[in-house]
This record gives sequence, C-alpha cells and structure tokens, in this order.
Amino acid sequence: MPDDLVLASGSATRRRLLESAGVTFRVQPSGVDEEEVKRSLRARGADALDVAETLAEIKALQVGSSQPHALVIGADQMLDCQGVWFDKPSSTKAVADHLRRLMGRSHRLATAAVICSDGRRIWHHRAEAWLSMRSLSEAFVKDYVERFGEEVCGSIGAYRLEEIGAQLFSAVEGDHFVIQGLPLLPLLGFLRERGVLMR
Amino acid sequence: MPDDLVLASGSATRRRLLESAGVTFRVQPSGVDEEEVKRSLRARGADALDVAETLAEIKALQVGSSQPHALVIGADQMLDCQGVWFDKPSSTKAVADHLRRLMGRSHRLATAAVICSDGRRIWHHRAEAWLSMRSLSEAFVKDYVERFGEEVCGSIGAYRLEEIGAQLFSAVEGDHFVIQGLPLLPLLGFLRERGVLMR
Repeated sequence: MPDDLVLASGSATRRRLLESAGVTFRVQPSGVDEEEVKRSLRARGADALDVAETLAEIKALQVGSSQPHALVIGADQMLDCQGVWFDKPSSTKAVADHLRRLMGRSHRLATAAVICSDGRRIWHHRAEAWLSMRSLSEAFVKDYVERFGEEVCGSIGAYRLEEIGAQLFSAVEGDHFVIQGLPLLPLLGFLRERGVLMR
Repeated sequence: MPDDLVLASGSATRRRLLESAGVTFRVQPSGVDEEEVKRSLRARGADALDVAETLAEIKALQVGSSQPHALVIGADQMLDCQGVWFDKPSSTKAVADHLRRLMGRSHRLATAAVICSDGRRIWHHRAEAWLSMRSLSEAFVKDYVERFGEEVCGSIGAYRLEEIGAQLFSAVEGDHFVIQGLPLLPLLGFLRERGVLMR
C-alpha cells in the first residue's frame, strides 16, 4: 500500500509546486505559532536556516500526531536581510515598507523541508538562495503596490519572482524551487527512494 | 513615445515569461531556417552558446528588417549533452529517445537573447545552466511519454522543469529563466535603461 502523503502547509505555492510535479497528497495546515518559535530561537542566537528547519519539523510533527502512519511534509522559509528577519507583509502598506527596506541590498531565502512519520523525523533538507534587489524609484514602488500589493501579501519578500517580481532583481542565485519555498528536487528524490514515486 | 517592442519568437514559454514580468510587447516569429544555421556553424566548430547567440541575432534582425525602429528581441536555446546537440522532439517516440539519451548524464542549456534596432544589434546576453538527469526506469519513461509526451514535444529537452519535469532531475544549476529559454533579468535591466520599463 502506498504511503499516505500529507503536506502540512497552507501555502498555495508549495501546493502548486508539488501538484505540478505530479505528486498525489493531501493538505493539512498546522496550527503552529510560528512567531513564538522564531522569537525564542532568535533569543538563543539561531541562524535563519536553523529556524526554518525547526519550524518545518514542528509543523510536520504536529500534523503527524493525529495520523502517525502518514508521511507528513513540513516546510518553512525565512527571509534574512543583513541579520533582519522579514515576515509576510500584512497589508499593502507593509508591502511598500518591505520593498524600501530590501531594495539596493542582497537578501537570503533560507528554505527547509522535513518529513516525519510515526512521530519522528525521517528526512530533511535545507538550502539557501540569494537575491539582489535593485534600487527602485518611488514611482515604481507606488505603482507596484497599487497593482500587485494585495496579491503579494502572502509572499515573505512581497514578491513573486516568476511574475512581476522579476522586475525587482538585478541578480538571483539559487534553485528556483528553493526560492519558491520548497527544496523540491531532494524531496522528490526521497519520495522515490521511499517508493511513493516511480523511479 | 515608448519604444515598440517585438518578440521575434513563437515560443509560448518566452511569451509567458515576458507577460508574467509585466512587459508589453508584440509577437512576430521569424522564419529563419534554424537547422541550416546550426549545421553550418557546427561544421565550423562553433560552441552551442555561439550558435544560440547567432540564431537569436539572426531572428531579431530578420523580424526587424520590416520595422526598423522597433526594438526586436531574438532568443535561442541549445541543448548540448556531451557534445551532442538535441532538437525539440518531433513525436512522442522522439520524447522517449530524448529521455533515454539524456538520462544518467548532465546536459547544458545554452541560452542567448539579442535586441536589434535599426538593423543592428544593440544588446545581447548569453548564459548557461546545467541539469543532471537521474536514471529512469523503463516503466517511468513509458508512463511519462503516455501522459506528457504530446505536451513536451515543444520543449528542447522533452521536459518542463516547472511541471512533471522536476521528477527527471537529481540536480539543477542555473537561473530558472535561463533554463526556460530567456535570460530575463538582464533583459529587463536593458529595457529599464532604455526607458521601456519603469526604473
């Protein structure tokens, strides 16, 4: 019997990435209080990548607790710009703030995924990508917020690179799946080893 | 008056990339005989990246010849696997052949874009990406061809990385836009310099 695969994330992007790659799974977002975990780890001097990995694991374990035999995928992504961690913008005003603070600088997207089963972690992967945002004119920021502000509120950096976000960057270094929030290729590799996907 | 921007390519992917990035343009595919150019350059020992750049320029110049004042974007992509150049598969049988020849190996996607105006090249960019295809079982190849064979005939490597193609690879190195056939970030940079896009 094939493993029951669960994505412990409410992210539409992660869902689309897995669906597009031809994976069959259920979605069950976790109820983890991410802010509390971030604050606590930050106080202990953790790196953004450690936080992403810890959050991915906590989410997978929480969702897995009610369905011990399922394979549960947890994932998380942190945005670190010169030591400052960014959250998803909560409003179009916050979108403008994000852009003004990120522009003219490079930031790092730290992405992790963890798979849990039977109450323990059985696989994990962590990866980074670097993005250099160009200087943006005030007119550009205003136009961007007006036209795309609502739809990018769900994205940690207030952009979607595969859409209008491409206009924000002078350089991007890293795996596109990692940028979108899921280390897809290693994850698919594990699912093949496990027999969930055809080799 | 803003420049009239023309994409000299029939590629649905290139069109989608530019549209998604918020660029306004017209599409006018060229009628260049690409095979003839490839054969001729191959005979002279050209590298795949030189061929991509030459083809991008020929396409842009040809389409631009009837509209000298437009900015015309030409683009091309070559797939080079250990010295063998691959063409788009012409049938679902060719899709299976492609996969059997690419699997277990790394191949290179060589991508170039050129912008011409008034009968001369005014900008160009070339870039490479490397993709490592895992070993595929015969059952996987058969299933892939049955389910996706028709739709990947338009793709040079018989895959779309952003869809089921993700299942083919163990590792991918390079810009996702370059993999999809257009060095989008440098191209957008030029369009900003030129005043076609807002800074």
